Amino acid sequence: MTAKLRKKIRTCPSGYLRKQIFILLHIKSEDMKARIITIGDEITTGYIENTNATWICRRLTESGITVEYVLAVGDTPESIQNAVELAIAGTDIVIITGGLGPTRDDITKTTLTNFFNSELVFNEQVFQDISRLFASRGFAMSELNRKQAMVPANCRVIRNLIGTAPAMVFTHGKTQLFSLPGVPFEMKRLMTDSILPELKKNLNQATVFKTVMIQGIGESHLAELLSNWENALPKDIKLSYLPSPGIIKLRFSSTGSDIKTVEEHIQTEIRKLNKIIPGYIFGYEDITMEAAIGKLLNTTQQSLCTAESCTGGYIAHLLTSVPGSSAYFKGSVVAYSNDIKNNELGVSKETLDTKGAVSQETAELMAGGALKKFGCDYAIATTGIAGPDGATPGKPVGTVWIAIASASQIHSEKFQFGDDRQRNIRRSAVTALNLLRKRIEKENFPQSFGL
Amino acid sequence: MTAKLRKKIRTCPSGYLRKQIFILLHIKSEDMKARIITIGDEITTGYIENTNATWICRRLTESGITVEYVLAVGDTPESIQNAVELAIAGTDIVIITGGLGPTRDDITKTTLTNFFNSELVFNEQVFQDISRLFASRGFAMSELNRKQAMVPANCRVIRNLIGTAPAMVFTHGKTQLFSLPGVPFEMKRLMTDSILPELKKNLNQATVFKTVMIQGIGESHLAELLSNWENALPKDIKLSYLPSPGIIKLRFSSTGSDIKTVEEHIQTEIRKLNKIIPGYIFGYEDITMEAAIGKLLNTTQQSLCTAESCTGGYIAHLLTSVPGSSAYFKGSVVAYSNDIKNNELGVSKETLDTKGAVSQETAELMAGGALKKFGCDYAIATTGIAGPDGATPGKPVGTVWIAIASASQIHSEKFQFGDDRQRNIRRSAVTALNLLRKRIEKENFPQSFGL
Repeated sequence: MTAKLRKKIRTCPSGYLRKQIFILLHIKSEDMKARIITIGDEITTGYIENTNATWICRRLTESGITVEYVLAVGDTPESIQNAVELAIAGTDIVIITGGLGPTRDDITKTTLTNFFNSELVFNEQVFQDISRLFASRGFAMSELNRKQAMVPANCRVIRNLIGTAPAMVFTHGKTQLFSLPGVPFEMKRLMTDSILPELKKNLNQATVFKTVMIQGIGESHLAELLSNWENALPKDIKLSYLPSPGIIKLRFSSTGSDIKTVEEHIQTEIRKLNKIIPGYIFGYEDITMEAAIGKLLNTTQQSLCTAESCTGGYIAHLLTSVPGSSAYFKGSVVAYSNDIKNNELGVSKETLDTKGAVSQETAELMAGGALKKFGCDYAIATTGIAGPDGATPGKPVGTVWIAIASASQIHSEKFQFGDDRQRNIRRSAVTALNLLRKRIEKENFPQSFGL
Repeated sequence: MTAKLRKKIRTCPSGYLRKQIFILLHIKSEDMKARIITIGDEITTGYIENTNATWICRRLTESGITVEYVLAVGDTPESIQNAVELAIAGTDIVIITGGLGPTRDDITKTTLTNFFNSELVFNEQVFQDISRLFASRGFAMSELNRKQAMVPANCRVIRNLIGTAPAMVFTHGKTQLFSLPGVPFEMKRLMTDSILPELKKNLNQATVFKTVMIQGIGESHLAELLSNWENALPKDIKLSYLPSPGIIKLRFSSTGSDIKTVEEHIQTEIRKLNKIIPGYIFGYEDITMEAAIGKLLNTTQQSLCTAESCTGGYIAHLLTSVPGSSAYFKGSVVAYSNDIKNNELGVSKETLDTKGAVSQETAELMAGGALKKFGCDYAIATTGIAGPDGATPGKPVGTVWIAIASASQIHSEKFQFGDDRQRNIRRSAVTALNLLRKRIEKENFPQSFGL
């Protein structure tokens, strides 16, 4: 709510009217809802991801506007017509992207022109913008582009200074419909510079998101551990479980007029969460495990190396995906063959013969060997059966031994993952990184560990 | 498509126009129509991309099924109820993903149970599947998971052997509604193994897609080389360029009632293509470069290792992502620090001091050192500046030296990639693998190489 509106309410002579205005404004902002329509066969044929919809959903949600749904339809007048009919009734905002380019004879524009019983008229301003754009790029303007200066008579035009199709705004009862080009950078510029600021004027609230990153526990067990706390969660805080291989993201969201208050409101719950499952939380927001470890090692000024069999270099890849990782990551031996386990990491042939390459002994010798070889503070070692082949009696696909070595100790754990090779590699890596993270915290920050 | 239009498409720098026109000309089967509903606040709040919908759209389109729309709604019973009501009438197939997990934000099952006036009953088969899954992972089964064995009485269950939520099929008039878990790899497995084969039985025509994988040439240069052939392409064959870092996929599609005929029709053109750009084609369908190399080395019975600096183990990871790669891939030294380049790969301190870690000499010594150390037939070495830091005068971010060593020779090339760390790592790896692929072909199949 703008200061101007607040003043209006304050200075309204009638207390009753004042209250009514406040309620109206309050309800309007509280209840602002949006629906998104994306037009294009490239989406309904699965040719590209619907990144426009995702981007708009995120921006509207952050602005405190609830997205009721996203509807993706193909490039036919009927489907566009039906989508608009469905969306326009009973909501505040409809945002349409796509179908405004010169290549498909403006199918969205003509469809909207008909839907709103209007006609296309020449718009000098738009024509000037298009001409300027072509001049700046040194291209000649085509007949198709000239056509883009025709807009429905009853729409409000929002100028597009970086593309040939302007945004168009139609009003239908209490609903505003925004039609935007589908070219991502044009759509984003129009949303950011014009449409979002316009919408936010009518809002006095925003939605805050907080994410807690969790590793080392399954979704259902986590839900059980958290059930009491979750039941007691304030109604205005929404919680979502977002699982991905080896990791669960707990996402909090809440809406309010004062962002700081809402943030503190969520933080209070996150502090409680921290006391319930301290060991499983490795970071906040969308930090990756490898970035979290990077932060730790930059703080402790310690170094790291890996000795990888079943993960085949994936852990080293994750670690080196982090900018600046050369400060703490020294290198790795990917010991896929037993010869390399033996020659490079000092796993004795006897151990490999008697205990096997996938064994506690091999894992720990690999970790110790790498630690010594590279003179690092920490070493991760993995050895397991990623699959689909390689299973032996007592060692099914998914059996993985992970060892963490430091100056003070070498500790290893056995894990049983699934039968999917890619997931086994991914889960082995994330699990190994989490074991390392806990070890680093335990050895460097014992007082804060697990709190 | 006219020659003029083809030229327009070819010469479009972004590939955007090309895609639009490809899509416009995309042939759709009128036989069967589908609607997709994805459930989850993570989509409507823009937290994640709706990759499930994109994947399903793609597979249905390839099967000759037309996707009428994708509707993404949030995690409330009302929105799910409304979405199902909207979708169920007047189509053949409705596919719903999401909201079947054990946590409390998962409400699709109860909503569908109410919608289809049914009740939840215990399903012994599902219970057994869940129990087996937990036993295989060595986890205890929770009460929440037991609840997942309850399914609507009037639905047909499709077993999910890799997750705890089964697929459910409801029949409503002539419409079939499939409810699938939202976990991508579970959804994909259920679609691929059960649902798509089931749907294809009822189809009398399908769209055939063939993909040619190309590396080592830019998009516009490729388009020029192919222009004559492309202009002569039969009208019913659609061609599209799908560029991704370091690789271009040429995708052919054509629709017909007899798959074999359509496939042969496309194959004829692929054979012509093979004669025009033999050196650049590394495989067909969505085969990866690493899998193509695996095929070669399995044929030649040769072995491979890597010495990686700027790629940080990513090449080893790609190679070991291929099932059975242990037959030819021995291992790797990830030499992130100069000490490791010196101690493990025999790059002299003098070379590192005078020529630098990112130099032809270092790259070739790394490759030779790894080849000798691991006793392999081939070795790949990479050293470069992935960024954002590390640039030096004359060596900007994106400078990468790649060396390929074999018994007969060590050859290296310098590349200048961009300023994006992740893309530099990715492009370095793909480029290095392609140099290796060409070397293997040249040394083992000289007669067929380049033909």
